[in-house]
Amino acid sequence: MESNNHYTYQTLYAFSESVFLKMGCSALDAALATKVLLSADLRGIDSHGIARLVGYVRLWEVGRINATPDIKIVHETPSTAVIDGDRGLGLIVAPRAMEIAMEKAKQVGTGWVSVKNSNHFGIAGYHAMMALEQEMIGIAMTNASALVAPTYAAEKLLGTNPIAVAVPAGEEAPFVADFATTTAANGKLEIAQRKNTSIPFGWAQDAAGNPTQDASILKNGGALLPLGSEKEQGSHKGYALGSIVDIFSAVLSGASFGPWAPPFPAYVPMPENMPGEGLGHFIGAMRIDAFRPAADFKYNMDLWLNRFRNATAASGHEKVYVAGDIERAMEYERLQNGIPIVQAVQHDLSVLAEKMNLSFELKS
Amino acid sequence: MESNNHYTYQTLYAFSESVFLKMGCSALDAALATKVLLSADLRGIDSHGIARLVGYVRLWEVGRINATPDIKIVHETPSTAVIDGDRGLGLIVAPRAMEIAMEKAKQVGTGWVSVKNSNHFGIAGYHAMMALEQEMIGIAMTNASALVAPTYAAEKLLGTNPIAVAVPAGEEAPFVADFATTTAANGKLEIAQRKNTSIPFGWAQDAAGNPTQDASILKNGGALLPLGSEKEQGSHKGYALGSIVDIFSAVLSGASFGPWAPPFPAYVPMPENMPGEGLGHFIGAMRIDAFRPAADFKYNMDLWLNRFRNATAASGHEKVYVAGDIERAMEYERLQNGIPIVQAVQHDLSVLAEKMNLSFELKS
Repeated sequence: MESNNHYTYQTLYAFSESVFLKMGCSALDAALATKVLLSADLRGIDSHGIARLVGYVRLWEVGRINATPDIKIVHETPSTAVIDGDRGLGLIVAPRAMEIAMEKAKQVGTGWVSVKNSNHFGIAGYHAMMALEQEMIGIAMTNASALVAPTYAAEKLLGTNPIAVAVPAGEEAPFVADFATTTAANGKLEIAQRKNTSIPFGWAQDAAGNPTQDASILKNGGALLPLGSEKEQGSHKGYALGSIVDIFSAVLSGASFGPWAPPFPAYVPMPENMPGEGLGHFIGAMRIDAFRPAADFKYNMDLWLNRFRNATAASGHEKVYVAGDIERAMEYERLQNGIPIVQAVQHDLSVLAEKMNLSFELKS
Repeated sequence: MESNNHYTYQTLYAFSESVFLKMGCSALDAALATKVLLSADLRGIDSHGIARLVGYVRLWEVGRINATPDIKIVHETPSTAVIDGDRGLGLIVAPRAMEIAMEKAKQVGTGWVSVKNSNHFGIAGYHAMMALEQEMIGIAMTNASALVAPTYAAEKLLGTNPIAVAVPAGEEAPFVADFATTTAANGKLEIAQRKNTSIPFGWAQDAAGNPTQDASILKNGGALLPLGSEKEQGSHKGYALGSIVDIFSAVLSGASFGPWAPPFPAYVPMPENMPGEGLGHFIGAMRIDAFRPAADFKYNMDLWLNRFRNATAASGHEKVYVAGDIERAMEYERLQNGIPIVQAVQHDLSVLAEKMNLSFELKS
């Protein structure tokens, strides 16, 4: 059993912010990066939150992250833009992209921004949800370093390439989908490795492309499987989705794509012959009143949400959820009761604190 | 073994066109509807092609399809529109929507059209591929009558809600994804029923929400499963995707959504208390040069396609395909050798021919 000790959001916020400030981020950027990073911990997506802080610092140490980027629009039309993230933290580049997308949506109905030369942007859901306050539908996706084998392939050519879509409503809580285009996230394999348990068939394959239940198979040439697992269960659809994310995020922007996407671990060498610059994202915003009067849309969206939330549950289940419901409940709970941090991450953070001349309290 | 007899594309085209003319479609509309319908047969998606012609006629007979619709823009901004399909054939309403989307993309970079009051639009891929000739990325999706249970639900609340995305390239053949957001298409269950075989676990559930291998379970209160099959294999992601298609196609346009989407079989009564008008589609077009110079995009897209098409195959497989490759090869083959039509469909078509005072040659 892993021992999880709880930290308040405020404690983790203060520490994370101080780390970004030590990296040389501006006060505004340090606060934004912290907010985006910790939105993962609040929503229960622990693999994308403060557990990754050490990884961002390492990328900065080796010069792959620029703490003071000059983020620029390099191409645009009334409804589109490409921005160059100047090797900045994806945590701040992606919100900037969403701001540009929303500004364009205000002018012409929708805005679409493809981003190059960026880095890991935290959870896609944060960026998509920015649109909700403006009565817009928000869309966010990103490519990532290759861990996933296409259907029928024995090679890793795609990242876990997540898609997030946030849709505003009236009285009901909004619809917020945020998911990797794989069957299981890599974080689930890492948890199984720590617990020394096997994984279900359908999550991964070995180096030759055969089914496996070995949670550490990625260290031995294995790969994650696209959503759908096997061809018979529709893996070619998950493969197509991951491809679309890669193309929209990176081929459209001029970022590096497919097997050439830059790795997150700083000790992994950059791919040779990279066809583009850095990691890519694709961010979109659609004003709901660019399609219908906002009140009409919200009335129907409330009906949609209400109908699905009150659907008859299958035997053995209590309730049917809409995308984002479980994460919203988690956020409420963790703001009250604190955020559990596993020992390994606590240790990483205390080592980081010492290195940066900051303090982080270990609990045991 | 089912006996399949082959018909030339020209034979099926002439017959289908004559049926649409008998329904009262204009010459232009009859030709377009035929071209869209038969694109399914050519690409090997037999469930969406001429096999459905009888179904369209029945919908017209009961007044649910208007053969001479007045398709109108009812709301618009520079990058968006909602169109009212006036109960027209989706086969002609959706291409109109794509034309409007492309016109807007020419003006402001992208165009996004949500459609209400339409009907079944054939294969999503046809509409997405229209954008390729204009050096645009094409996107098409549609909602459909409810056959799919959300994760943890014992009710059918979503259709098979397909998504198509077509991406142009330079020298390489384009990327064309076109897939239902379910694990398996309903057509695969129908084939298993005709052959009297069972279906794999993960395709469907029974009325209580339990796993089943019964191919005829939908007749007994069962449901198709979202892409991912079960929660552990990511079915909540397929459920989210199907939801996004429903919201973009129908809540955004004012069409009927979720369990209230109109049924395709004319003998199924319309749902009570429908919240919107007809079926909905969502169509998008993005000019590639709204993001980068077209030549740069094409150069990188060719590299992407080439890398994936030449990936190392898994053991037991010869080749890795990119989305659309198998359908493109099928189209080439069927244009040469004809289109196989199963006996049941031949019979339906000959009955239809007799009723409409046309001729259709039965083969046996």
